[in-house]
Amino acid sequence: MSVDELAVGLRDCAFGAGRLAKAVDIYEEMLSEETTKFIGIAGALVPAGMRPILAEMVRDRYVDVVVTTGATLVHDIIEALGDSHYMSADVDGLGNDLWLRQQGIDRIYDIVVHDEAFAHLEEFLRSVFEELSCERESYNIRELLTAIGENLTDRNSILRSAVESEVPVFCPAIADSMIGLHAWIYKQTGDLTVDAFADMRELIDLFCEAKRTGAIILGGGVPKNFIFQTALIAPPREGGEEGLDYAMQITTKTPEDGSLSGASLEEAKSWGKIGSKSKSVTLYCDATIALPVIVAAVRERMARKNVTAKNSLSLYID
Amino acid sequence: MSVDELAVGLRDCAFGAGRLAKAVDIYEEMLSEETTKFIGIAGALVPAGMRPILAEMVRDRYVDVVVTTGATLVHDIIEALGDSHYMSADVDGLGNDLWLRQQGIDRIYDIVVHDEAFAHLEEFLRSVFEELSCERESYNIRELLTAIGENLTDRNSILRSAVESEVPVFCPAIADSMIGLHAWIYKQTGDLTVDAFADMRELIDLFCEAKRTGAIILGGGVPKNFIFQTALIAPPREGGEEGLDYAMQITTKTPEDGSLSGASLEEAKSWGKIGSKSKSVTLYCDATIALPVIVAAVRERMARKNVTAKNSLSLYID
Amino acid sequence: MSVDELAVGLRDCAFGAGRLAKAVDIYEEMLSEETTKFIGIAGALVPAGMRPILAEMVRDRYVDVVVTTGATLVHDIIEALGDSHYMSADVDGLGNDLWLRQQGIDRIYDIVVHDEAFAHLEEFLRSVFEELSCERESYNIRELLTAIGENLTDRNSILRSAVESEVPVFCPAIADSMIGLHAWIYKQTGDLTVDAFADMRELIDLFCEAKRTGAIILGGGVPKNFIFQTALIAPPREGGEEGLDYAMQITTKTPEDGSLSGASLEEAKSWGKIGSKSKSVTLYCDATIALPVIVAAVRERMARKNVTAKNSLSLYID
Amino acid sequence: MSVDELAVGLRDCAFGAGRLAKAVDIYEEMLSEETTKFIGIAGALVPAGMRPILAEMVRDRYVDVVVTTGATLVHDIIEALGDSHYMSADVDGLGNDLWLRQQGIDRIYDIVVHDEAFAHLEEFLRSVFEELSCERESYNIRELLTAIGENLTDRNSILRSAVESEVPVFCPAIADSMIGLHAWIYKQTGDLTVDAFADMRELIDLFCEAKRTGAIILGGGVPKNFIFQTALIAPPREGGEEGLDYAMQITTKTPEDGSLSGASLEEAKSWGKIGSKSKSVTLYCDATIALPVIVAAVRERMARKNVTAKNSLSLYID
Repeated sequence: MSVDELAVGLRDCAFGAGRLAKAVDIYEEMLSEETTKFIGIAGALVPAGMRPILAEMVRDRYVDVVVTTGATLVHDIIEALGDSHYMSADVDGLGNDLWLRQQGIDRIYDIVVHDEAFAHLEEFLRSVFEELSCERESYNIRELLTAIGENLTDRNSILRSAVESEVPVFCPAIADSMIGLHAWIYKQTGDLTVDAFADMRELIDLFCEAKRTGAIILGGGVPKNFIFQTALIAPPREGGEEGLDYAMQITTKTPEDGSLSGASLEEAKSWGKIGSKSKSVTLYCDATIALPVIVAAVRERMARKNVTAKNSLSLYID
Repeated sequence: MSVDELAVGLRDCAFGAGRLAKAVDIYEEMLSEETTKFIGIAGALVPAGMRPILAEMVRDRYVDVVVTTGATLVHDIIEALGDSHYMSADVDGLGNDLWLRQQGIDRIYDIVVHDEAFAHLEEFLRSVFEELSCERESYNIRELLTAIGENLTDRNSILRSAVESEVPVFCPAIADSMIGLHAWIYKQTGDLTVDAFADMRELIDLFCEAKRTGAIILGGGVPKNFIFQTALIAPPREGGEEGLDYAMQITTKTPEDGSLSGASLEEAKSWGKIGSKSKSVTLYCDATIALPVIVAAVRERMARKNVTAKNSLSLYID
Repeated sequence: MSVDELAVGLRDCAFGAGRLAKAVDIYEEMLSEETTKFIGIAGALVPAGMRPILAEMVRDRYVDVVVTTGATLVHDIIEALGDSHYMSADVDGLGNDLWLRQQGIDRIYDIVVHDEAFAHLEEFLRSVFEELSCERESYNIRELLTAIGENLTDRNSILRSAVESEVPVFCPAIADSMIGLHAWIYKQTGDLTVDAFADMRELIDLFCEAKRTGAIILGGGVPKNFIFQTALIAPPREGGEEGLDYAMQITTKTPEDGSLSGASLEEAKSWGKIGSKSKSVTLYCDATIALPVIVAAVRERMARKNVTAKNSLSLYID
Repeated sequence: MSVDELAVGLRDCAFGAGRLAKAVDIYEEMLSEETTKFIGIAGALVPAGMRPILAEMVRDRYVDVVVTTGATLVHDIIEALGDSHYMSADVDGLGNDLWLRQQGIDRIYDIVVHDEAFAHLEEFLRSVFEELSCERESYNIRELLTAIGENLTDRNSILRSAVESEVPVFCPAIADSMIGLHAWIYKQTGDLTVDAFADMRELIDLFCEAKRTGAIILGGGVPKNFIFQTALIAPPREGGEEGLDYAMQITTKTPEDGSLSGASLEEAKSWGKIGSKSKSVTLYCDATIALPVIVAAVRERMARKNVTAKNSLSLYID
């Protein structure tokens, strides 16, 4: 049984199964129409092993704009530089985080990474910053991330793939990451200014120029909020329609404590973040389970149609 | 991409993805060894559309013993009698449960069922009870459920499939269901006694006679507890090994509030419910998403090996 | 600041805080009106330390009918017999459940209990059963639990308090517990029959005879379902009103996977389990946090009014 | 019963109750020692009604450094300007978010706010930015937020209270908020530069200068990560001890999907974010429930001791 046969088979099901099938259908439609597809990536998806899937989505323009956290980019660079996130022994039996500390091993749930990966990261970032500061002094975050991607060679890197496919990467909270930290350290002695507000216009422009817009929200946090904020700010189209045309979110957070990460897509309609005629679905699931299934199913459908993902415009900003 | 290719591809992943892959591997091993496989089914999986998958697992002896809730059996019978659980319109927009009440429609999250389905259920159960009380007066629950299954004709029924495949079905909390209610009503005028304790021995015997034992826990509740209680009570094997040899649970409940439904399988080892050398995995996921993926992947592997599921003994009790 | 001052201060708050305040208000109203108050107790609340609060609620008729799991009663008896559930060292550092197994220590999340507690339980139950089987052969579950309560002397026991306050205790899934197990073992040689269906009528009668009905649902599982099933079956009152008049549930389960434990009280209205004019609230919270706060606040209000809880009828069945 | 009597009464309890009691004890110790207390605030706590509690914590130096989201600050300013977040009718019956959209009403779970509140916000921010750009061109985020706080008069405002108590407020992801948006819009025509990296040093300095450090994490997201990142970067003290001395987090996210928001504090020890001899507790609970209880209990204890919160140094940066 192919993954898409499975997804189709779940169409009449309810609860998570029905929502999974609906997510595949919505994503297929996003890809079949000329839709600018924004992906919000939060959570440690890269250490969990989702990096090749995400990078391939970027490469093949299954997504057109990436909004993510600094941590995700740090993880991406670390793996692109040859360091690894290892599965630890069974997390329940792991026991002693103090022992890990003594070994120079850092834990992310059931994954570990060595301290030295961060040393390699620092060295790499410093070399990129040096290169950048030779050219000009001021960059916006998106430009900084492009420069980093240009210095990576790993095909499975999200940032490298983004450069190749001309997919812009935004990271509004970059200060809250090792990239931000090292940018700041570099700035103490070198000439490098990163303007945290300057790429807001780029993202709004991408939204306004799109024929149709879609959001794929993995986890919540800043990436979800930033995409939705952009949808909220962008002026309505001709005809008066406002907000995203498509939205799917995969999250383990439920709405009951009122946080944005678990907020329903219905709620987003009251703000105008999601359009009144939009198609949307929330899938309450660990994204490391749901994403591979959805992407495999959608890829199968697109291959059957013998089409590649349609994009409404050249998105990359020079 | 086939579902098993997907599952194999997730083997090196962490978080839910890695656990999904591990669940497939454990289930494959359970099926390849002579393992008596106990399944605990809680939650509204049948209305959600999982009934054909569960019935097929029973028919093909992917499971050997079923422990479930009264509600699951009620749902199974309702569908076997030709009534349906419909997907309601989007649950978030459903709005008015009082309106549904006036229409005689009952809601289970994003599913609805008509009141008349329960009238058909009542009629059917009464006819079965009448038949039963002609033969003898006293039954244990497992026998009662066998008799119900014998009176159903729907191939996709779990109870019907259980009869055909000689898979015993246990339901310790049957009083807490419409089946229990109608059994009690019938008893007021007819001769029918259902002994709630009498099939405890049968379940223990099944455990003791098994070469190896495995549990597949969907949700928690009474089915999980009853299977684990049996594992706890059963005497150790020759060699001193005690508890289940394999266990996988798929649950949306996490351990932090101390309830059994979310309790870890590690914790179960402290009780001796799970063996010290067992293989086990907990997958935190909506079972309607994870179960179809796991079963499809395992079926693919078994088909490739060209073997059917191995069972250690004829389990059905006469 | 008193606990009720805190609760009153949260009245204008939203999310969990607002729901907590509403729960206190609803409970106060339940107690001020002549309401038959059914409590459903699931989860390991007794080992967690909620036993004195629950026993006091029973003693002072803050609840009139108890529906619970076998595990809760086992925990209650174990503590009444002088054994203890100890807080273990920090659960995250606990590490080795296999080591606990070797020590004869059983873990419930961050609590442990010694194996010998279960030996004392067995001895005690056997003596009760012997006594019972001298009198007559057949008991319903409620009667069995009364007999157990009569043999306990600990004031903080739920079962003992229930006897003293004439609060009936129901446990439909008793087979799924050590009490059920030992009843069955005893039955192999002695004369003791426990009819699992026989107390269904008692519960329905309690519901029908009530002026007003209220449910306090702690966790979900069988206790929630059994109380709601009773509300569903009970004929409408004069005037046509059906279902519970008040309902509050405290649960960590959310509705998204469709299980009954997380089902909303709105959904219950579509079934007629909860009345169309009812007052109800769902509080998504660990009951060990919310229950002490709510009970302390309500007790303060009742003390201020200088009234004890009103009960509509003598509930105890002889 | 006073709130602290309740908290003390839960000390021997397990699960959430025990953790609540432990959180009170740890917070008391933080306040009794000379501890620099960092609070991370994520989630819609202000609309939920937690603003007066949070503002009072700031005013009385129950916290010394605030790290929060742009949304929290937007909510704080909106209320300080006289607009309100209203409790909506019961969220489950709310139904139609499209209708809300037409009315110009925006929903946050069970709360609503009028569109015009955002117009008032815009007007206010513009006036602050104009004032600022007269003085000098470049500000870091902490300075920007101080300036905003100086222009508010509402005693219950977090930002106003922070100014009065010399508590610095950090918001690394301010670009992801209406404040960031309006700062960017203003910048198009006026002279205002906000440097997103410039206050990293200030936060690190606050950490380094502290005798002891404690973190109170409400929700997860960027505030949690930024505080922990600072703890990670800061050099070890004399004696070699590194990381936070105290940490308590109140979160509804559990660790199983590997995201930082749900990550355990044990895990943080492997990174050195939390010290090896630290005292820490994670409370899995809606913060709108747990925070008022904890703060009321701790205030009671401090009042009994007749001491105010001790602070190790004047934290405010000029």
